[in-house]
Amino acid sequence: MNEFDLIARLTRDLPHNPSVQVGAGDDCAVLDLGLPERWLLFKTDAVVEGVHFEAGAAPEKIGHKALARCLSDVAAMAGDPGAALITLALPPRFDAARIEGIYRGLNALARRWGVAVVGGETTTNPDRLLISVALLGSVEKDRCVLRRGALPGDALFVSGTLGGALRGHHLEFEPRLEEARWLARHFPVHAMIDLSDGLAGDLRHLLAAGGVGAELLARAIPVSAAARAAARARISGKTALVSALTDGEDFELLFAVASRDSVRLLDAWRERFPRVRLSCVGRVTAEPGLRLRTAEGVREFEGHGYVHFA
Amino acid sequence: MNEFDLIARLTRDLPHNPSVQVGAGDDCAVLDLGLPERWLLFKTDAVVEGVHFEAGAAPEKIGHKALARCLSDVAAMAGDPGAALITLALPPRFDAARIEGIYRGLNALARRWGVAVVGGETTTNPDRLLISVALLGSVEKDRCVLRRGALPGDALFVSGTLGGALRGHHLEFEPRLEEARWLARHFPVHAMIDLSDGLAGDLRHLLAAGGVGAELLARAIPVSAAARAAARARISGKTALVSALTDGEDFELLFAVASRDSVRLLDAWRERFPRVRLSCVGRVTAEPGLRLRTAEGVREFEGHGYVHFA
Repeated sequence: MNEFDLIARLTRDLPHNPSVQVGAGDDCAVLDLGLPERWLLFKTDAVVEGVHFEAGAAPEKIGHKALARCLSDVAAMAGDPGAALITLALPPRFDAARIEGIYRGLNALARRWGVAVVGGETTTNPDRLLISVALLGSVEKDRCVLRRGALPGDALFVSGTLGGALRGHHLEFEPRLEEARWLARHFPVHAMIDLSDGLAGDLRHLLAAGGVGAELLARAIPVSAAARAAARARISGKTALVSALTDGEDFELLFAVASRDSVRLLDAWRERFPRVRLSCVGRVTAEPGLRLRTAEGVREFEGHGYVHFA
Repeated sequence: MNEFDLIARLTRDLPHNPSVQVGAGDDCAVLDLGLPERWLLFKTDAVVEGVHFEAGAAPEKIGHKALARCLSDVAAMAGDPGAALITLALPPRFDAARIEGIYRGLNALARRWGVAVVGGETTTNPDRLLISVALLGSVEKDRCVLRRGALPGDALFVSGTLGGALRGHHLEFEPRLEEARWLARHFPVHAMIDLSDGLAGDLRHLLAAGGVGAELLARAIPVSAAARAAARARISGKTALVSALTDGEDFELLFAVASRDSVRLLDAWRERFPRVRLSCVGRVTAEPGLRLRTAEGVREFEGHGYVHFA
């Protein structure tokens, strides 16, 4: 049983109450606690030594990544982050300077986005460091963007460039909060997700949520310089394109808008975010599945994103 | 450096924003997100295999404990729990039936208290199971009870019986949500905390928050049958009284009320909760420190609660 099978079993019959607008299965949970115009966003995410970062990584970057992953999920709903709790599970003999470095990185990112760090917990994990972040945010009710909602004919867009994130980007990325809020304010975004498991894997989540399929255009995929370098160095045995489709940890935005909005979106984005690439990578289809169009024609793309358990 | 020293260093200069009513250092963080009459409560708590439960513990009880600890913290603020996110960090080869058992225990407790489980995450912790729960709750602004606020002359009360919780209670306790809400509705409670580190340790937290001290009356401490049994079996080398003062994991309420309310409180409690013992265990003093009055006189009590790192 892999992670997704386990999650499917565990989330079949979860306890519910009337506050829940969106429960398990989107980037954040969405709750209506009685605020007239806003919903709350609620998210947790953990990073584990040896899994999400190497033991030798710079402590500031570990802290940055731990919080940035949660912020990226709030971005994927077009929300504003508000307050975070930090759970630090540490071996009994820990390096206090390292922990303070982790907090320095985390706090700097929190300050940049107006996030209050309101406590948390230290506990014991005898074998390795684990950092779990719980984040509370909010979003205007009529601007909240979910994973579901993509319609046949929609254009699919991706911010930034993809692939090879483990070469450095995964410890340094800035969550796309500003871009996502701007998007939701100016365009009807039908569906959105942040890319943590890789374009192919996360696109499948977005398509499954909407009951649709997609066709990607190979030459439109924004392959990162890191993915090209990795392919040249033959590190993973993947081509640069396959890296961009499956590597994971990009933390870019993937979203669907009506195709009639595409040109206006590309123009407005270029003006507002001249340094952030935006690519129209394909279109949503009524037919399920994920197809890749290359110079040789169209074929089913079988590759998945990162699967957490083998 | 022990856990408390580390926390003191990490919480010196945390990022803040105007929503924060109470940040790090109380049972829950308290946030004002614009609801007219209520504050939000925000809490995380983790349990780790081999630290907070043995690998052989019944899965349902592990799940129960993971959520009950957070609920106990919401109880300590006299709040209502609302929604939870569950982080499950698992070895790559996990036992799906065990995980489902954990969720069964957790979900049953959640349903009993109207808590929605709105998702969470599974991730990899290669060496052992770790479960972190993030909980969102709320409380009426004028009934929220903090750790700070105890005044010299106040009477100190404890619910239930104390000590020896590791003999079973720690996996089975019911959080004192109902008792706490009733208390805050009917009495001006000056300060409250839930007992996770032991009466002596947690009382010290409550006293430090209020800048006061206390005198406990040894014969008034409600020593549990489990603490007496452990003392008879000479398991820990502690007397039953010292067990009750220092064992931890009781998850009872400790609170301070004006001494003039004591008799009325004891009478009303007995009528409302006839099966839950309530004990007046001592009084708050202007003089700092923690003193214990026994048949031999009054002496400083040096024993601490559970310290998470040696």
